[in-house]
Amino acid sequence: MTDSYELYYWPMLPGRGEFVRLVLEEAGVPYRDVARLPEAEGGGVQALMPFIRGERPGLPPYAPPILVHGDLVLAQTAAICAYLGERHGLTPDDPEKRMQVLQLQLTVADVTDEAHDTHHPVSVVLYYEDQKEAAREAARQFLDQRLPRFLPYFERVVERNGGPWLMGDALSYADLSLFQLLEGLAYAFPRGFAKVTESTPALVALRARVASLPRIAAYLASDRRLGFNEHGVFRRYPELDLDG
Amino acid sequence: MTDSYELYYWPMLPGRGEFVRLVLEEAGVPYRDVARLPEAEGGGVQALMPFIRGERPGLPPYAPPILVHGDLVLAQTAAICAYLGERHGLTPDDPEKRMQVLQLQLTVADVTDEAHDTHHPVSVVLYYEDQKEAAREAARQFLDQRLPRFLPYFERVVERNGGPWLMGDALSYADLSLFQLLEGLAYAFPRGFAKVTESTPALVALRARVASLPRIAAYLASDRRLGFNEHGVFRRYPELDLDG
Repeated sequence: MTDSYELYYWPMLPGRGEFVRLVLEEAGVPYRDVARLPEAEGGGVQALMPFIRGERPGLPPYAPPILVHGDLVLAQTAAICAYLGERHGLTPDDPEKRMQVLQLQLTVADVTDEAHDTHHPVSVVLYYEDQKEAAREAARQFLDQRLPRFLPYFERVVERNGGPWLMGDALSYADLSLFQLLEGLAYAFPRGFAKVTESTPALVALRARVASLPRIAAYLASDRRLGFNEHGVFRRYPELDLDG
Repeated sequence: MTDSYELYYWPMLPGRGEFVRLVLEEAGVPYRDVARLPEAEGGGVQALMPFIRGERPGLPPYAPPILVHGDLVLAQTAAICAYLGERHGLTPDDPEKRMQVLQLQLTVADVTDEAHDTHHPVSVVLYYEDQKEAAREAARQFLDQRLPRFLPYFERVVERNGGPWLMGDALSYADLSLFQLLEGLAYAFPRGFAKVTESTPALVALRARVASLPRIAAYLASDRRLGFNEHGVFRRYPELDLDG
């Protein structure tokens, strides 16, 4: 099968689609970011609707991001990253190490979910404004109790494997996702993130190292890269960060 | 490598460890459920502590469940299920279909997380009693808005693939996890679950079909099977279910 990929994701926010984009970019393969095309070329939110309404053939996705590759329709961020990782040398061939990369990816996803839930603790179907009080408490616990365990955990993994990457000397898709998580946390919680990362120098170095990978650096400087905003997973609501 | 597995999980609740147990049981392989052994034989919660404190060699797990297989230490429920599934014929060999099973497993995990978060919406580090008001609203939204989308989604997958299993005629680890999700929802929200499943006959049939698999039926009748309780993911708090 050729490496002709289509990505479908909400066009107005980086969200979970960005974890997939980083793998596609580092793999150096062409892809169409369909919903970000002009509507006249089949883009826009309506490009997602046939999947969500179950009208497309293939296994139905529950939600974006969705990767289309030939007849394959694949959803769930970690499954898409693992699929691309196997095809493009961004995960080890050895089955045990391949599963360990998936373990790390799923732990990145857990932190990402908890970061999201700081601004939507009660329900994703309610507005932030309708759960602000719970959100303040959720964010406080996240910054005080959760992030100071999650980030040192990843620091320990890098150290245990000898660095500079999570799995040692081999870059994997989990490193790219960890980079995006760190970028998102730095955006959403500048004070809280700065405090926790004082004690995680290997993560600070890993973040900079991903950003300077030639293909990633070119991508970050391009207009393909979407900035964070208050529609996505990582939102900068100053009232949810540590007090100054 | 021999099929000599050790599972490490909190001994007092089924939780996410139960998704792993179901795969081990259907695979028909022997395993030691270490933390459920008597303390004199190395069991109990303290069996988990060397992993959590990072004292064990191998890739550190962030949290249980943890599978040990030879030198491999593997965490994250979906990664463990995928690993066992590949070794014991509970996922397709074809890379595309194998990733689709992972997609479905991760969607089961998403619903499981949302079910958990109904009783802990604000933070896992606070008691239920300290977030009861938010929990009532979270549970209401989960039963009104989320479950009526998630369960028909899985129904559509079974129908699309021709049934009786998620992937058609081949049982996979995702079916076993979907069974556990349905069992948990039926326990936690008897009224809400009964209402939603009126329109998902294929899921009702799949749940019964898993329960009658010979190895699973023997397991469910054994004392290895832990019942649900109010320490786990799925908790029966009547105030969180639909009104009678």
